[in-house]
Amino acid sequence: MKPVELRRIISKSEFIKPTAGYCNGFVQANLVVLPSEYAGDFEKFCEKNPKPCPLLEVVGPGKHHTSKIAKGADLLKDIPKYQTFIDGKPDKEISDITDLYKEDFVFFLLGCSFSFEEALMNSGIYLRHVEEKKNVSMYNTNIDLESVGIFSGKMVVSMRPIKCSRIVDAALICSKFPSVHGAPIHVGDPSQIGISDINAVDYGDSVAVLPDELPVFWPCGVTPQNVLKQAKLPFAITHSPGYMLVCDIKNEDLRID
Amino acid sequence: MKPVELRRIISKSEFIKPTAGYCNGFVQANLVVLPSEYAGDFEKFCEKNPKPCPLLEVVGPGKHHTSKIAKGADLLKDIPKYQTFIDGKPDKEISDITDLYKEDFVFFLLGCSFSFEEALMNSGIYLRHVEEKKNVSMYNTNIDLESVGIFSGKMVVSMRPIKCSRIVDAALICSKFPSVHGAPIHVGDPSQIGISDINAVDYGDSVAVLPDELPVFWPCGVTPQNVLKQAKLPFAITHSPGYMLVCDIKNEDLRID
Repeated sequence: MKPVELRRIISKSEFIKPTAGYCNGFVQANLVVLPSEYAGDFEKFCEKNPKPCPLLEVVGPGKHHTSKIAKGADLLKDIPKYQTFIDGKPDKEISDITDLYKEDFVFFLLGCSFSFEEALMNSGIYLRHVEEKKNVSMYNTNIDLESVGIFSGKMVVSMRPIKCSRIVDAALICSKFPSVHGAPIHVGDPSQIGISDINAVDYGDSVAVLPDELPVFWPCGVTPQNVLKQAKLPFAITHSPGYMLVCDIKNEDLRID
Repeated sequence: MKPVELRRIISKSEFIKPTAGYCNGFVQANLVVLPSEYAGDFEKFCEKNPKPCPLLEVVGPGKHHTSKIAKGADLLKDIPKYQTFIDGKPDKEISDITDLYKEDFVFFLLGCSFSFEEALMNSGIYLRHVEEKKNVSMYNTNIDLESVGIFSGKMVVSMRPIKCSRIVDAALICSKFPSVHGAPIHVGDPSQIGISDINAVDYGDSVAVLPDELPVFWPCGVTPQNVLKQAKLPFAITHSPGYMLVCDIKNEDLRID
């Protein structure tokens, strides 16, 4: 199925499922929707923290269709499931936000690690969470983000165990994808970035780190979601975790050379 | 002092010292001299093993002046100290090989890690052996080289302890210098590449690996020297370890972007 076809089904609320594994090879994006009052600062915040918050496209105010990453995707209904927030707390999960739309909404589309994971696997780098059909391991850290206005906090990281002989390859491959988190930020000893127990994930699932592997840490897209919750905005919308925007551009299109 | 000025003094055998620390910013190269009978296979061997044996320039037969990496450096006397080998065994150390020269000599100039070390330090990555004024730690490994004719063996690696938070930076920086060994090939657990004791170096000096660091391993220029010894050629000449050819090109000129 082509992304445009999947989005058509999604827009009719006939596909309310996580999008992982669909339209392989195509970019999937995270969504953040804010009233324009907060949008300027949030955009600056993303620009100052591009590794955890890589902006792929910004839409609006006054518009709700993408043009760069997908041809005319309707951001009010082309995502399978949305999460609304009131005062920073989750409110509703819905498959269409047309009824909530206001002219001053700004839509932020952010890169996701699915894109570089494809490149890693194509290079023969084993990803345990993919093989074991688990969610990637994620942790809160002590790494400060650059603050802008009410947006601040600490970085969330994802962790993938990588064989010692492939760590450099993994770093080099991911560095070619700066718009989807890019290269890892830490290798080895988790305590240095404020993770006291590698087996106690803060988000996602735990996986084993074998003796010939080291834990490798990447900036994670949960970071902006967390920052948003902590900012306790009166109103915000995101995609529901795992229910992403399936784009027309390919992961390979994000590779820089 | 400019490289051409240092080479002029060296050519008169008035500077018989290791070249580390002289003409900072300029490339220093390793030398291997072989009779043409063996030169073709050695060149192929380097091309098949470019990480440990990065060829910068090949001169001869019939010529003994560089043109690419230095303007007209005379390879018979512009290196402070040479080492001759008979049947793979060290014979003499001399400061001028003019008297030994034969028309069929082929001169191989190989890249050296000094070039990427400058880039690492410029990025604020601490190199303990430099700070402690020691030689870099080097080890034999179990990593097979691609064989060509009589040239074969295992890779020698250099090890630098790097902070967990800078390992990816170190890998990315060095990957921009493929002609001087390039990116590391292994991070962490030394036993996986056949090093049983990190404190027992095979060449160079031992340095401490601190708790917030991991040992990071690079392909090393001792590899071709070792291969040469093992091939037990009737006759060969190299530079004496540490007594390098100081070139006119800058380390930065070797950076690819």
